[in-house]
Amino acid sequence: MKPTGAMYIAGDAVFGDAGIIHGTDPADGTELEPAFRYAGSGLAGAAAERAEAAFEPFRAASTEQRARLLELAADEIEAVRDAAVERAHLETGLPVGRLTGEVARTTGQLRLFAATLRDGGWQGARIDHELPDRQPARRPDVRTRRVPVGPVVVFAASNFPFAFSVAGGDTAAALAAGCPVVVKAHDAHPGTSEIVAAAVTRAVGASGLPAGIFSMVFADGPTVGVELVRHPAIAAVAFTGSRAAGLALVSAAASRPVPIPVYAEMSAVNPVFLLPERLSEAAAELGAAFTGSLTLGAGQFCTNPGIVVGIEGPGLDRFAAAAREAVAASAPAPMLTRRIATSYRDGEARLAAHPAVEIVARAAAPEGDSWGSAMLVTTTAAEFIASPDLQAEVFGATAVIVRAASADQLLDVARAMEGQLTATVHAAAPDTSLASRLLPILERMAGRIIFNGWPTGVEVVPSMVHGGPFPATSDSRTTSVGTMAMDRFLRPVAYQDVPDALLPSAVRESNPESLPRLVDGSYTAAP
Amino acid sequence: MKPTGAMYIAGDAVFGDAGIIHGTDPADGTELEPAFRYAGSGLAGAAAERAEAAFEPFRAASTEQRARLLELAADEIEAVRDAAVERAHLETGLPVGRLTGEVARTTGQLRLFAATLRDGGWQGARIDHELPDRQPARRPDVRTRRVPVGPVVVFAASNFPFAFSVAGGDTAAALAAGCPVVVKAHDAHPGTSEIVAAAVTRAVGASGLPAGIFSMVFADGPTVGVELVRHPAIAAVAFTGSRAAGLALVSAAASRPVPIPVYAEMSAVNPVFLLPERLSEAAAELGAAFTGSLTLGAGQFCTNPGIVVGIEGPGLDRFAAAAREAVAASAPAPMLTRRIATSYRDGEARLAAHPAVEIVARAAAPEGDSWGSAMLVTTTAAEFIASPDLQAEVFGATAVIVRAASADQLLDVARAMEGQLTATVHAAAPDTSLASRLLPILERMAGRIIFNGWPTGVEVVPSMVHGGPFPATSDSRTTSVGTMAMDRFLRPVAYQDVPDALLPSAVRESNPESLPRLVDGSYTAAP
Repeated sequence: MKPTGAMYIAGDAVFGDAGIIHGTDPADGTELEPAFRYAGSGLAGAAAERAEAAFEPFRAASTEQRARLLELAADEIEAVRDAAVERAHLETGLPVGRLTGEVARTTGQLRLFAATLRDGGWQGARIDHELPDRQPARRPDVRTRRVPVGPVVVFAASNFPFAFSVAGGDTAAALAAGCPVVVKAHDAHPGTSEIVAAAVTRAVGASGLPAGIFSMVFADGPTVGVELVRHPAIAAVAFTGSRAAGLALVSAAASRPVPIPVYAEMSAVNPVFLLPERLSEAAAELGAAFTGSLTLGAGQFCTNPGIVVGIEGPGLDRFAAAAREAVAASAPAPMLTRRIATSYRDGEARLAAHPAVEIVARAAAPEGDSWGSAMLVTTTAAEFIASPDLQAEVFGATAVIVRAASADQLLDVARAMEGQLTATVHAAAPDTSLASRLLPILERMAGRIIFNGWPTGVEVVPSMVHGGPFPATSDSRTTSVGTMAMDRFLRPVAYQDVPDALLPSAVRESNPESLPRLVDGSYTAAP
Repeated sequence: MKPTGAMYIAGDAVFGDAGIIHGTDPADGTELEPAFRYAGSGLAGAAAERAEAAFEPFRAASTEQRARLLELAADEIEAVRDAAVERAHLETGLPVGRLTGEVARTTGQLRLFAATLRDGGWQGARIDHELPDRQPARRPDVRTRRVPVGPVVVFAASNFPFAFSVAGGDTAAALAAGCPVVVKAHDAHPGTSEIVAAAVTRAVGASGLPAGIFSMVFADGPTVGVELVRHPAIAAVAFTGSRAAGLALVSAAASRPVPIPVYAEMSAVNPVFLLPERLSEAAAELGAAFTGSLTLGAGQFCTNPGIVVGIEGPGLDRFAAAAREAVAASAPAPMLTRRIATSYRDGEARLAAHPAVEIVARAAAPEGDSWGSAMLVTTTAAEFIASPDLQAEVFGATAVIVRAASADQLLDVARAMEGQLTATVHAAAPDTSLASRLLPILERMAGRIIFNGWPTGVEVVPSMVHGGPFPATSDSRTTSVGTMAMDRFLRPVAYQDVPDALLPSAVRESNPESLPRLVDGSYTAAP
């Protein structure tokens, strides 16, 4: 299918009534057809109201019906994969192979949530039976399960046109939890968004669930996007993007008459710590591999490694030399949008001019307005600790090598860092003692700690944490990838002395859904 | 022991350096000895800094050592029970029997968290093993456990001088999670706070854990209390109290350079729905029992039932008559503080003068400035829905009977209500159909749904939810009572390809702590 310029509101293809946008080919800035129009306040509000109207029937539907919805969505997306990848390649400049893999990740994610729904642990079912003879008073029967919070607005990201976009992790997690979703699509890939939204809309139609559980709108973020966050029907918000935009949504949500949570995944520089013994055995190899992670997708990953910390010495010098060579040889690449490229160049220039850094390597100058190229700079640990602005994310392929004078100073650098999505350690066996001193610092800093690998690449597994302390996210207790991502959209409700016939099936005595439950303080597996 | 005027900072009895406060006998307003002095910024900041310094050793200590700490605290509190209850009775006017029961609840709560720690499910351990041969790339080994967020400030409540105060649910949950605690004691019971803080301090000393994990300060809330919330060492805040004070802390925490969560339990009117068949069989009995719940502790419960909804008819009339008689016969009671009493009388007068209500009953006029007495008013469902101010909590023993014209209008009243801690239904078997329509509305409104009982009385069990949608709390995903209260102070960290020797024991392959874990998507019970 080819995009037509439509958004989708509760099952209907709808054309916007506000500003016009186009996808663009980032390689040369060409505007792509068709034109898309933004939703004004009325259309966006209609999507929120349809979501609210669909909420009760959606959450009353069986877990199995919800799981089927997610599988149908995966099937429908696979059915349009080639067209979607082709369009996404045009709109983002990302390679076809990467995009094809990203579709597989997106559909795999939908199916993983379906399996998680059937497993049932997400319901958080707990039962504490009555103690009729307790003194001084009877203890009542108390049972708990988790219920969906209500309609969720998802702000799609620019950098993953499938996995963090219309049918990405946030949408999958919210639908899995039983929350209707209104997606605010990202302007960087409107055609891709339409193709995916049409697929999800077909899945909703085939599922027999109410059409209002899914809408996708194009909208101006600072005006109509914020109105969506402030719409009384909306109960939670998920966002992936810049710190400034994320904080604006957090602030808008907090100042509502009824405040709601915003789960914003914002910014990180994902430090990499190179411990000395590992450096001494593989400095050149690490320098090349690091540069691969740095320049992947033109550096446009939330988990892009922007800081490398090592202890001064021949190992670190060899690492820097290898990275210098690889960076210098790296090709400029089109960035996702002209705006992102402009912002990248501003950040790159600011970093290059920073009095505390020296430039190690710069790749060839980019070809056009929308292109970016890699840059590597270096500074001392003392300068880094004294210059918090060196920790600001430059979204793209720049990194700072921080040279510590000692192991203690390397630990001080770690302590000086703000919250991160990831922290990576390269360590050989003789580095274990230093690594064990570093780990507790990293646990406070980051949501995910990686050994002898690179932070780019986030597995969609039950144990994944794609989150972390502020400013990496607005809520360090949550993740936006992996099955725990559902927890953001669920809240517990306790039932005290409610007759069995009126209890939700999750906590009925006979356990008709065969759920794992915590009964009188003991875990009971599914029968 | 008798109170000496001391607060406790990291093991040391310390006397404040700012404003003077006294406990008062609420029966007659007499100031009790000794005087207590507030902590100025320096002392409060020192408590936060000692908490931060103690955090790493505390979280590195074994689960068993933490469980022992909680048990030692329970033992030490029991050892001073009589003195503590006597002082609390003087300072709050609450009956000795009720206070003795509250101490038992408080120590039981500490021991329940100790048992929960040993069970280990709270660690949220998950393992997804490596898939070395996965195509197109190896899947790494990923493991997750939850870690404590950091030092927590607990704002003690006025109305439960033990269970929601110095060593109450918030303190127990935070210490159980591995977070050092700085308690901001409530001015309503400083002597009780000193006695309990001394007991907890002895427990910390006996536990071998660092003294900085527990401090208790007296402080002016709007100045030094807010400074504590804004102290860089503090990672989370727990609060029980008024909506205005809670929202002020939420706002202070959100505007920090690094925002932190505030778990504020604020206000609720805890509606009670009387379904017609149950009314027809037991109206008079319900009227008397309702009044018992309404006037318990002078109505100073977070779960006090402030709204009763029924369908007009002889049953509701008999209920109202019985409640009128019981309210009229109820004795005035001293309230916790003069300020609470003043605020109660203002609220009572506002409600009595509200054009939409008629007074059903008023108890005898109170004897002194600090006393309150019960009042019951009534209104129609239409007036109630049109008057959101009738939902405002009046902290004390007032309630509104809302008369619906039909079952549908009773449901409309439920839909019009803001977030609540509890919602109660009185229903007989023939009411099941109406109850089943009411339940989904209550699930969206409240954290706990009670059948054929009364909301006052919160069991400390694993399935308890003492929480609910705004404005009942600032985070509907959480509870401040029951073992899930720990979740507020934990965040997940993922470990990717971390060598077994460096992994925390919770996710080591051999499962040395015998934890229940989610391994490759399947629950594994403790071995």
